[in-house]
Amino acid sequence: MREVAIVAAGMTRFGELWESSLRDLFAEAALEALGAAGVDRVDSLYVGCMSAGQFVGQEHLGPLMADQLGMAGVAATHVESACASGGVALRSAFIEVASGMSDLVLAAGVEKMTDGADVTAVLATAADQETEAYHGITFPGLYAMIARAHMQSKGTTEEDLAWVAVKSHRHGALNPKAQFRREVKLEEVLNSSMVADPLRLLHCSPVSDGAAAVLLCPLADAKKYTDRPVRIRASGLATSTMALADRKDPSFLDAVQLSAERAYRMAGVTPRDIQVAEVHDCFTIAEICCIEALGLVPTCSGRHAARSGETALGGRLPVNPSGGLKSKGHPVGATGIAQAIEIFEQLRGEAGARQVKDAHLGLTQNMGGSGASSVVHIFERA
Amino acid sequence: MREVAIVAAGMTRFGELWESSLRDLFAEAALEALGAAGVDRVDSLYVGCMSAGQFVGQEHLGPLMADQLGMAGVAATHVESACASGGVALRSAFIEVASGMSDLVLAAGVEKMTDGADVTAVLATAADQETEAYHGITFPGLYAMIARAHMQSKGTTEEDLAWVAVKSHRHGALNPKAQFRREVKLEEVLNSSMVADPLRLLHCSPVSDGAAAVLLCPLADAKKYTDRPVRIRASGLATSTMALADRKDPSFLDAVQLSAERAYRMAGVTPRDIQVAEVHDCFTIAEICCIEALGLVPTCSGRHAARSGETALGGRLPVNPSGGLKSKGHPVGATGIAQAIEIFEQLRGEAGARQVKDAHLGLTQNMGGSGASSVVHIFERA
Repeated sequence: MREVAIVAAGMTRFGELWESSLRDLFAEAALEALGAAGVDRVDSLYVGCMSAGQFVGQEHLGPLMADQLGMAGVAATHVESACASGGVALRSAFIEVASGMSDLVLAAGVEKMTDGADVTAVLATAADQETEAYHGITFPGLYAMIARAHMQSKGTTEEDLAWVAVKSHRHGALNPKAQFRREVKLEEVLNSSMVADPLRLLHCSPVSDGAAAVLLCPLADAKKYTDRPVRIRASGLATSTMALADRKDPSFLDAVQLSAERAYRMAGVTPRDIQVAEVHDCFTIAEICCIEALGLVPTCSGRHAARSGETALGGRLPVNPSGGLKSKGHPVGATGIAQAIEIFEQLRGEAGARQVKDAHLGLTQNMGGSGASSVVHIFERA
Repeated sequence: MREVAIVAAGMTRFGELWESSLRDLFAEAALEALGAAGVDRVDSLYVGCMSAGQFVGQEHLGPLMADQLGMAGVAATHVESACASGGVALRSAFIEVASGMSDLVLAAGVEKMTDGADVTAVLATAADQETEAYHGITFPGLYAMIARAHMQSKGTTEEDLAWVAVKSHRHGALNPKAQFRREVKLEEVLNSSMVADPLRLLHCSPVSDGAAAVLLCPLADAKKYTDRPVRIRASGLATSTMALADRKDPSFLDAVQLSAERAYRMAGVTPRDIQVAEVHDCFTIAEICCIEALGLVPTCSGRHAARSGETALGGRLPVNPSGGLKSKGHPVGATGIAQAIEIFEQLRGEAGARQVKDAHLGLTQNMGGSGASSVVHIFERA
């Protein structure tokens, strides 16, 4: 396999972007990435998107987006893994470049969620239709059950969860692309309206529009496009049971652990080598479960990490310096690529007020559903 | 890149399979393929499906299907390119094996179309939502315009179109997996009810349920799983404008030509070397346009091919010996894989009454929408 690098990135602001359509969002992010590398053609492109079909009545996103970029003709593929669609698009692009099939590949993610669809119902189609969604459970409901299980088995408290939101918003306030650029106080989180006990409004990532794109090429060619490429050291993808009830311990995200193990093995690194991470905090409890499953903190100690400052900017291992899904926003198909962009900028020393000092090695973890799919990438300053 | 082979295949019957759900169909095809190779695990799997989200309210098909096979944990990815979703799933699996990332990869396609959704409206989401679908055009309407343009520029007649249906049904009558196992007479086609002038009912592929799966591995390992592997010599993917109106000549499928050029170049063969082909005849006119764009017959002579017997079993170059989408059925996400299975069986000499004598080199062409995406694979008896 060839070594692969990211050489450019582009991203829209995340938020309720009423004035932009699905294709507008994609084109804005993609053209920014292409412009940064000084190219107007690629060999192939991948579109990560969960469900433009249900959200805006549009399937067949590969040719649509190629056409929208003025590149009709180019190979183009849409990949979907619910909220991990962006991460899986990055993985597909990585494999295509690594294989030698293509030299310059765009990996982009997009979601347009605010066009009138019943968002909660559409998102529920990422759960098991027959055993979960059909019976009325929603994702806040599923993650509330994960939270309750975590509280019971590991002693996590509502205040532990709330500290994750406080940290995320503190980071997001520093991110010009974030949907919510404001800090929240612990009391605000604890007193926000209940969504699915014990998860309150400020434990939940928002409904968002947005797009993000990165440009990949063989590491050997990277200096043609940038003087600061970032190498993709590894890609790990794993699945778990679709239905939460089929897992031995609902508070343990086994697909996250397995995807991370595959990535650590491929990169030849350990969790202790990671200096900055973006993880999938669709709900505050998810960040706690993920950092445990990734091995970034010991099991049962995830609940202390935000409160103690360990995972805050300036702490031992900053997690979600971008503000995470919670504060930056979560246009589901775009999230995995946006995570990669945060690490790309961190490793290039371009993260401004959010910069993690001397970061050389970073990780992203993006997951779908209640953790039925998870994809981990490890990046290194080249 | 490593050489890649198909070593096993499995496929459901195509038809209105009321008693089988989306996951049932997938599992039946996948387990048949795994059983044929004598394995119960793979490294990775791909699911080609256009829109289970809209058809049956289920996204996140990668982990769902991995779980359904008892393989929760395995890497799994859903790819979509409208009616070319199966072909693109095969391409993705091919690239993953070629790259060295994985050794044993399942590429499967599935669609469950008869569960009550408004099928014509769902399929229309593969067209350009803003400039086509929103204004009420359907796929029969788009292909009717392609047919009219072909009639005007190349002299094609209603009878030419009807001969394609006669040939397809003659082939399909020999295929135990086909939805319509009966021949039709020219008069029946010409007198069938009008759908979108000049396309009548018997010019249109049906609404179908079904699934198909193939197992891929490095050619060097193929003899572990079968004594008759089939090598994938090439994969070409291309796009065109999303909207039919944006093309210079609506009767010329430029993405089909471009995807074929890429595949011929990769394989180092010419159209004259192809001995059997499965092409995307979602409507009779599509087969005529495709064999022209693939270079299998000269431009302007596609209209004669079915009538003259050139593309019939026993002719110079049998096209759609399976019965094609027209007679075999068209569960859209499964079609691209089912095409590959027909060629796999032809090259192994297992096609029974449909066998093309001494076939060594075969081709599949699968497309999405009105030809906005097209994927071509070339296969060789290994």
